[in-house]
Amino acid sequence: MTITNARGYAVYDPKDYLNFKVIDYPLEALEDDRVTVAVECCGVCGSDHHTISGGWDHGAPSLFVTGHEVIGKVVELGKNVKGFEIGQRVGVGAQVGSCRRCKACKQGNENYCPTPVHGYNTLWPDNSEHQGGYSTHVRAQEHFVFPIPESIPSTDAASMLCGGLTVFSPLVRNGAGPGKKVGVVGLGGLGHYAVLFGAALGAEVTVFSRTDAKKADALAMGAKNFVATANPDFHKDLQRELDLIIVTASSKNLPLDELLSTLDIGKKMLFVGMPEEGLSNVTAQTLSGNGAALASSHIGNRAEVLQMLDVAVKQNVKPWVQVLQMKDAAKAIQAVEDNSVSDFLNLQQRS
Amino acid sequence: MTITNARGYAVYDPKDYLNFKVIDYPLEALEDDRVTVAVECCGVCGSDHHTISGGWDHGAPSLFVTGHEVIGKVVELGKNVKGFEIGQRVGVGAQVGSCRRCKACKQGNENYCPTPVHGYNTLWPDNSEHQGGYSTHVRAQEHFVFPIPESIPSTDAASMLCGGLTVFSPLVRNGAGPGKKVGVVGLGGLGHYAVLFGAALGAEVTVFSRTDAKKADALAMGAKNFVATANPDFHKDLQRELDLIIVTASSKNLPLDELLSTLDIGKKMLFVGMPEEGLSNVTAQTLSGNGAALASSHIGNRAEVLQMLDVAVKQNVKPWVQVLQMKDAAKAIQAVEDNSVSDFLNLQQRS
Repeated sequence: MTITNARGYAVYDPKDYLNFKVIDYPLEALEDDRVTVAVECCGVCGSDHHTISGGWDHGAPSLFVTGHEVIGKVVELGKNVKGFEIGQRVGVGAQVGSCRRCKACKQGNENYCPTPVHGYNTLWPDNSEHQGGYSTHVRAQEHFVFPIPESIPSTDAASMLCGGLTVFSPLVRNGAGPGKKVGVVGLGGLGHYAVLFGAALGAEVTVFSRTDAKKADALAMGAKNFVATANPDFHKDLQRELDLIIVTASSKNLPLDELLSTLDIGKKMLFVGMPEEGLSNVTAQTLSGNGAALASSHIGNRAEVLQMLDVAVKQNVKPWVQVLQMKDAAKAIQAVEDNSVSDFLNLQQRS
Repeated sequence: MTITNARGYAVYDPKDYLNFKVIDYPLEALEDDRVTVAVECCGVCGSDHHTISGGWDHGAPSLFVTGHEVIGKVVELGKNVKGFEIGQRVGVGAQVGSCRRCKACKQGNENYCPTPVHGYNTLWPDNSEHQGGYSTHVRAQEHFVFPIPESIPSTDAASMLCGGLTVFSPLVRNGAGPGKKVGVVGLGGLGHYAVLFGAALGAEVTVFSRTDAKKADALAMGAKNFVATANPDFHKDLQRELDLIIVTASSKNLPLDELLSTLDIGKKMLFVGMPEEGLSNVTAQTLSGNGAALASSHIGNRAEVLQMLDVAVKQNVKPWVQVLQMKDAAKAIQAVEDNSVSDFLNLQQRS
């Protein structure tokens, strides 16, 4: 008999977003192309905090179960699902559906589908609700369910599915690898993955952080160089050295001109951190000096998830995570808000 | 005997920049790698007006002979110059020298050399002055002197060397060609070249202009489509259609978000127009929707000049220019200021 309900930790009020309540709610239907996953654990992402604390006025449901870095076991298969079997360990990330028909989907850019179904607090085209992973179960289209290699612990794999992918995709799309030099600005959850995967892909990684406080961590993660941007001359010895910069910091006070000057000709500075204030000090003149580009990207596609997991296995990529019981999800959200952790991982406590 | 002086139209005062005086001034030395060119004609570029009317506080000379789109005849060869002969028709553009030793120069990116010598009002490393092409003579390093194919009239070739190259380089560096769709924002001097060369390279060109006033011109230049951005819905039918956008307009009121939405995933909007106000309304969110990038570029390299001239011959590219006598240079500058011409070309009147 098909599972109809899940039990999860829900937020009801963005003004009181640390007050999670355990609720039972209906799952979306098990369509022919969907898989039901019984949740084992789920990561905490900066966007969880950002979304639940900022209100959610995009026609979304009235309750809110966050979490979109899920690891669990397959417990149901839609009748057209071919790639999975019951009991298999799988992951589900920040996207659970797309139209599968548009130009983007056909190009293998389903992460840019104009009608995506995100990992939480969204509606399917039939207006059924999708809720996130601080729960007993999630459902997703087969295309957005990923087999997890045996050697990667669930608590390591979870946050790779959004945090890892968000930096892995632009790294590989922009050629990070042996002989390439990659700058990483900021060393939070995304930044630490950019260092881990940049190094795992064979690139030489330089971390830019405001002070030296995270230097030892950066080097331990695999960075070759560490630069404290509080030194106003930080860029002087790095002119046109880098092939790519991934910006994971959200500060509006980033020294963009100086960072851009460290890019080689015609290269990109790519933002995966999302400063709400915009890039107000950018001028075309800033960019023309070395023909640089400012770019951004949005998570990644299925092929990149599978490649990322393969790189993680072969290069033994170990994210730096802390593990809590899922009933303490509010503590994890609070810690993200306080910027006191790089990443968080909630082990589910079955009720 | 080596030529020591040139006679040109000079501006003395940025507050009185339409008051050109005929003066005699010393040319830089004929170094072994330099060529002396007797000027036949010289284009007028927006940056001429911009520079002479804005003051020139970059350690530059006290007089100012502008013009950096020169066609003329070789009259002297430095002793190491191998590629030219006396009497040959050649062109000199917006750059007359570079160090020839740095990483950029060795990569074939001499247009990004950190110590360039620009086409006017600059100093060579030995502090000798270089002045521009509203003159009888200019000198340039051999690398920045280009043979002009016989079938291109001098008055057509001149403005290609800066205006044409400034758009040709980003077109070819970003893959403009058959099967690609290129947007061109603005239809002034640069924009008209972007249309001509975009079409000549085989791309499908869409022109964005505020109103329909220039529609007939755009189509006559080779654009396939014309879009008036005064219509607030102008972008609706073009979502993710374009492979590249070249922005040649300098307005701070460009509808950047709407223009960006017309780019396919992971593509570039590249600014060659230089709005002084910056791109203040750009946010990383704007870019992440389709993984777009904002870029800029700086003129082009020698290989691109030669390729551009070859394309111009083979595709019979004819720029839209007006021709004046050089003594009327002030009228040309005035016309650029008034935005009443797309491009201007001054035939020299020998004194």
